[in-house]
Amino acid sequence: MQGIKQGITETSGLLGFYQNVRGKTEKLCEPLNIEDYIPQPIVDVSPPKWNIAHTTWFFEEMVLKQFSEGYREFDSNFGFLFNSYYNSIGERTKRDNRGDLSRPTVEQVFEYRKYVDEKMEAFLKTALPASVKELVVLGLNHEQQHQELFVTDLKYTLSCNPLFPAYHPDFILAEIGEVEPSEMIDIEGGIFEIGFAGEGFHFDNELGRHRVFLEDFSISPNIVSNGEFLEFIEDGGYADHRLWHSEGWDWVNENKVAHPLYWNHQNGEWNQFTLGGLRKLNENNAVCHISYYEAAAFAEWKGMRLPTEFEWEAASEMFEWGLRWEWTNSAYLPYPKFKKPEGAVGEYNGKFMINQMVLRGASVATPDGHSRKTYRNFFHPPLRWQFTGIRLAR
Amino acid sequence: MQGIKQGITETSGLLGFYQNVRGKTEKLCEPLNIEDYIPQPIVDVSPPKWNIAHTTWFFEEMVLKQFSEGYREFDSNFGFLFNSYYNSIGERTKRDNRGDLSRPTVEQVFEYRKYVDEKMEAFLKTALPASVKELVVLGLNHEQQHQELFVTDLKYTLSCNPLFPAYHPDFILAEIGEVEPSEMIDIEGGIFEIGFAGEGFHFDNELGRHRVFLEDFSISPNIVSNGEFLEFIEDGGYADHRLWHSEGWDWVNENKVAHPLYWNHQNGEWNQFTLGGLRKLNENNAVCHISYYEAAAFAEWKGMRLPTEFEWEAASEMFEWGLRWEWTNSAYLPYPKFKKPEGAVGEYNGKFMINQMVLRGASVATPDGHSRKTYRNFFHPPLRWQFTGIRLAR
Amino acid sequence: MQGIKQGITETSGLLGFYQNVRGKTEKLCEPLNIEDYIPQPIVDVSPPKWNIAHTTWFFEEMVLKQFSEGYREFDSNFGFLFNSYYNSIGERTKRDNRGDLSRPTVEQVFEYRKYVDEKMEAFLKTALPASVKELVVLGLNHEQQHQELFVTDLKYTLSCNPLFPAYHPDFILAEIGEVEPSEMIDIEGGIFEIGFAGEGFHFDNELGRHRVFLEDFSISPNIVSNGEFLEFIEDGGYADHRLWHSEGWDWVNENKVAHPLYWNHQNGEWNQFTLGGLRKLNENNAVCHISYYEAAAFAEWKGMRLPTEFEWEAASEMFEWGLRWEWTNSAYLPYPKFKKPEGAVGEYNGKFMINQMVLRGASVATPDGHSRKTYRNFFHPPLRWQFTGIRLAR
Amino acid sequence: MQGIKQGITETSGLLGFYQNVRGKTEKLCEPLNIEDYIPQPIVDVSPPKWNIAHTTWFFEEMVLKQFSEGYREFDSNFGFLFNSYYNSIGERTKRDNRGDLSRPTVEQVFEYRKYVDEKMEAFLKTALPASVKELVVLGLNHEQQHQELFVTDLKYTLSCNPLFPAYHPDFILAEIGEVEPSEMIDIEGGIFEIGFAGEGFHFDNELGRHRVFLEDFSISPNIVSNGEFLEFIEDGGYADHRLWHSEGWDWVNENKVAHPLYWNHQNGEWNQFTLGGLRKLNENNAVCHISYYEAAAFAEWKGMRLPTEFEWEAASEMFEWGLRWEWTNSAYLPYPKFKKPEGAVGEYNGKFMINQMVLRGASVATPDGHSRKTYRNFFHPPLRWQFTGIRLAR
Repeated sequence: MQGIKQGITETSGLLGFYQNVRGKTEKLCEPLNIEDYIPQPIVDVSPPKWNIAHTTWFFEEMVLKQFSEGYREFDSNFGFLFNSYYNSIGERTKRDNRGDLSRPTVEQVFEYRKYVDEKMEAFLKTALPASVKELVVLGLNHEQQHQELFVTDLKYTLSCNPLFPAYHPDFILAEIGEVEPSEMIDIEGGIFEIGFAGEGFHFDNELGRHRVFLEDFSISPNIVSNGEFLEFIEDGGYADHRLWHSEGWDWVNENKVAHPLYWNHQNGEWNQFTLGGLRKLNENNAVCHISYYEAAAFAEWKGMRLPTEFEWEAASEMFEWGLRWEWTNSAYLPYPKFKKPEGAVGEYNGKFMINQMVLRGASVATPDGHSRKTYRNFFHPPLRWQFTGIRLAR
Repeated sequence: MQGIKQGITETSGLLGFYQNVRGKTEKLCEPLNIEDYIPQPIVDVSPPKWNIAHTTWFFEEMVLKQFSEGYREFDSNFGFLFNSYYNSIGERTKRDNRGDLSRPTVEQVFEYRKYVDEKMEAFLKTALPASVKELVVLGLNHEQQHQELFVTDLKYTLSCNPLFPAYHPDFILAEIGEVEPSEMIDIEGGIFEIGFAGEGFHFDNELGRHRVFLEDFSISPNIVSNGEFLEFIEDGGYADHRLWHSEGWDWVNENKVAHPLYWNHQNGEWNQFTLGGLRKLNENNAVCHISYYEAAAFAEWKGMRLPTEFEWEAASEMFEWGLRWEWTNSAYLPYPKFKKPEGAVGEYNGKFMINQMVLRGASVATPDGHSRKTYRNFFHPPLRWQFTGIRLAR
Repeated sequence: MQGIKQGITETSGLLGFYQNVRGKTEKLCEPLNIEDYIPQPIVDVSPPKWNIAHTTWFFEEMVLKQFSEGYREFDSNFGFLFNSYYNSIGERTKRDNRGDLSRPTVEQVFEYRKYVDEKMEAFLKTALPASVKELVVLGLNHEQQHQELFVTDLKYTLSCNPLFPAYHPDFILAEIGEVEPSEMIDIEGGIFEIGFAGEGFHFDNELGRHRVFLEDFSISPNIVSNGEFLEFIEDGGYADHRLWHSEGWDWVNENKVAHPLYWNHQNGEWNQFTLGGLRKLNENNAVCHISYYEAAAFAEWKGMRLPTEFEWEAASEMFEWGLRWEWTNSAYLPYPKFKKPEGAVGEYNGKFMINQMVLRGASVATPDGHSRKTYRNFFHPPLRWQFTGIRLAR
Repeated sequence: MQGIKQGITETSGLLGFYQNVRGKTEKLCEPLNIEDYIPQPIVDVSPPKWNIAHTTWFFEEMVLKQFSEGYREFDSNFGFLFNSYYNSIGERTKRDNRGDLSRPTVEQVFEYRKYVDEKMEAFLKTALPASVKELVVLGLNHEQQHQELFVTDLKYTLSCNPLFPAYHPDFILAEIGEVEPSEMIDIEGGIFEIGFAGEGFHFDNELGRHRVFLEDFSISPNIVSNGEFLEFIEDGGYADHRLWHSEGWDWVNENKVAHPLYWNHQNGEWNQFTLGGLRKLNENNAVCHISYYEAAAFAEWKGMRLPTEFEWEAASEMFEWGLRWEWTNSAYLPYPKFKKPEGAVGEYNGKFMINQMVLRGASVATPDGHSRKTYRNFFHPPLRWQFTGIRLAR
């Protein structure tokens, strides 16, 4: 299904990669109290305990149980408890039921991690066929995706608490990021090659490389700032139906949306909840936690539009990205040569290709080295709990 | 916003077109009892009374009140009662409330039609600027869309009745249509021009003509038959999660979907409800009333896929179409040069460009001459009450 | 299950009663257009067509098919279409689906009435056992209940229409009714006999007569007026949580309730929708369309309470009633000797004895002679579409 | 509002009672892991952390802040976080949001308890007016109610976990309880005194003592066993609409109810989930976790009925009770002389007097000495998570 980064085709490289990623997850857990591992305030948000058990389950279920002879599973109940959405593998905890489980305890889940890590490390020291190595690399990229979810989900949960508790006082640094307005970049139309090519890791949805014709377009080298978004608010953007999609307009009215998620207007001043606690809004920072509907309405208000994912990829060498996931005006659909892999990993991407929009780039919560310019992230239009922002095109 | 068919640039041609379309609507009403004009069993379905009043309202509100000096509106309440979704024009009856209105009576609505027709006919005999003629042509195409809705909505309403009443015994003829399997057509890749060009009427969403690069593909010259779809059912297609999108699988299970809409299995035999009443299923007819989810699962089961709307348009000269609207694997999104028109007509298409899939072609319920190869129809993936079918590609 | 009014034990009296009640229903239909027979805006409200067919179905299903030898049913589908809630008799149209049925037509339903009336009239001229006569009397009381529902349901449906159409201009007379404040009546405590005794018709839920001990209490001889209720509104009654049951307070806030149903505040003036159209509110009229929650909150605000159904019955000779159904502070529960009758008529009352409150008296919409002082009406606490009002006790 | 038990009018007695009750709550916490304090799987169930903080809040908010001069609150946020339903006191955490709060930590909540206990103990050593002592006794009875909720809520939460974890292996002992069938007791009708009289603690809803006339009745000296309820199941009781209230029948069908809560049929054998884990069903034990609908249907199947709360109280000296809360056929309504107390404690009972049914007795989860024969418990008819059972009458 996917290649392997050159640097980790030797087993030693893969072991190092494994240890590195697994260690990073545990690092993320350090500031937590045991209580923080449990709540699930909305269905989209998973508890930390579930995130760290599920990523471990992936290696147990997809690698050790399939390929490591004589492997004995840690606990026969965990397959049910920590499966996410793989129908091929069987029954599982309902997605909105993950926060109801006080057992296994956090300590037991860490024992589970340790047990699987020991088995995996021994396994990775043996000679492995390329297909198994690929699966391990997939599992590590999967864990990186859950590292990002760990942080975004936790932010949502803490934001529900009227005490506005901080995850870690230093974490604020990672969430900000100054943006400076500058001129649009003009790109001449023509045929562009889109999709992954080369040797490194990639998901099945980035394949296969194919040609796309683009008309001339312009794209902004920077993403939209809090200050620019404030102008939209102050100009009545949330109250002007002409700027919104019909479903976006219903969403605004049903949910009484009047500002980005985590913004908070008190005593004439804008604050935003961050993983470092409640902070004063900085107008020069990149706007964040924006739904597709808000991104599209903002662009309409500016007299511009969002780029397509093809325009974004074609122009991506010409600007900086990585601070926010960027909504595109492309629906999440298969590339012309897309093929679902056989077996359970075939459920990784293909079955979600409906009713979602593509996001490109990466965010401050994305692990280093995880994303790339052909990476296709995707969410439903109203969702805002991810670190999402806006880039304009024309 | 759109051109005018060559044949109707002279005013006399436009008057004839007006009389022809308006007369067709009234012809559709002939088999109805007064009771049939009222019910609205689900929000997607409008009562006949509403359909025939709303199309009249379009001419009164958009044409006569704007451009016909001294025009006196028929009843000042009708603007509220029969507006569909134009926020720019003001408040309106809630969409799911259309079936609650016994007044105005059917007779009064026909008086309203007659009044507006008389004023319009007089108005169309005067010298009119091109932009007003264009608006009238838009109103007539709008009415043709509602003629199709009239028939599809009525079919749904009658199907809810355990008596399975017929609309008209002859109407069955129009619903069937034999299909004959044949070989796939191979199309060589390259750059294709997509979108409307030329002089005739078209919607804003078909503009502007632009280039698209397509890789090589094959497309079926015929659409799928009831018999082929029966094989899918008998092979357990509705019970195999691997064939379905994740949201499609939820839809199947929540709604216990096990066959196309209007099919009915009794005493070991398949029947289907038609506008001519309940009839035995003919395996050679084109399958109909299929959701996007079902179309995509069927294609997956065949080892094929649905065409994109670009492939469909590029190949459309090479096969027959018009029996069923055909789901494509393209999301309904703006073309590169799309521009929303100013004013209320700007709400016609653009604000719906999210979470819907494009359908191409036309159906047996589409008025003659209304569709064309660049025509973009669109519905949400689970909807089935339209005359929708499947064409396969690879 | 119940006795028979002395005057109608002879068959001739029963035939006259039958013709009288059936004729009254048809009289109620006279002001209607065909369109008015169809809509069902909420599940509690039945369309007129359903009401007049269902009451006919009762005689066909419960009397003619059971006891009239050789009776041929009018249409074998009608059993399904017009059953209300009798599980013993079989499947039926879902209650919220009654407004979806344009067929049978109104004309066919009147033919059905005529057919059943002819058969019933012939049947009533034969010698009948007492138990069958009792069933006929039950059917006629059932029809009287539906006459009241006919009027209350129609009022609700017309009120949904922004045109505020009138049912009949004269009907306003019946809805008003002046009330004059006067002193509370003091009743000395003791043992009272409660429930039906004697010969006339009565429902199973009024049986059997039994003793209840009441402490001393006082009860108002008049019901509450619009003017008194306006004082409650103006004093902030709808905004003071202390006056409300917990579920009532949720109901007020979720539904943004701020005045009785059908009241309408425009240009600084209160109007109310009546069956004669929209009229200026008369402060001396009895307040109407009040939920149990509102009645209880009003009583709390007055420093009083609602009477129990036992207090009401014990004191009922000492005041006038009949203008509004009066909420009591008694839950609808079986009397000590209550017994469900065998067969389908056993479903008439007993199975509803949970989560509803008893109303006593009668309203302007109740047919003459239908109610009596032992009559137990019952509705869920939030419902307001009946002609319901308030009597205070202490 | 209520009297004080003779034995605790001296301050020393009250201090001992305080320490005893508060200590009992902490005893209940001993078997828990920190994770167990957090989840709230349904809105009716509160997390242990919330239960132990809320009972503490009662003393801080209602006693110390009102009457202890110079008291400094522990944390100004806790008033918002741990208020249950007292509108008079202000805003609070939404009831279904209690499981989303990981902070304050469990350790902090125990510090809060300790802080308040120290202040309360000092306060209770001073001379206090009777009204304050009464409030403290109310707070302790309130805490006892929450001790019962602590256990019932925890059972529900653990039952959602596919691992079926035990709270404590010994706890099974308390849940069982053998019942032996014996003859009905006949009670002769007449006037009975109902409601609390005397000196001890009681709730406002038990006042005032008043006379009720009861007809002759019979009541069972024992409650229904699992074995008897199994007969009902095996006789098709859950599938026979004639036994059920209309709303009960809907409840059975919508929720596919086929046995009491926590029963589990596997490999031809019935098990039940207990606080000691999953155990084989013992047919001689008292049936438990029964909704009002099930209790009423079972009684109907037996040809009997549930007793009223008045019958229960009148006969209560003649049988043993305390193993299960017993559904009565009385709605929860005010006694004739009921008066809501002034201020926030007025919200304790009165505002819930609608749409709930009275339960009498006590259960194995009720703290010793907490209940009495005049005690009125109340729940909505479909609820089953309490330890509820059935006593029959006739």
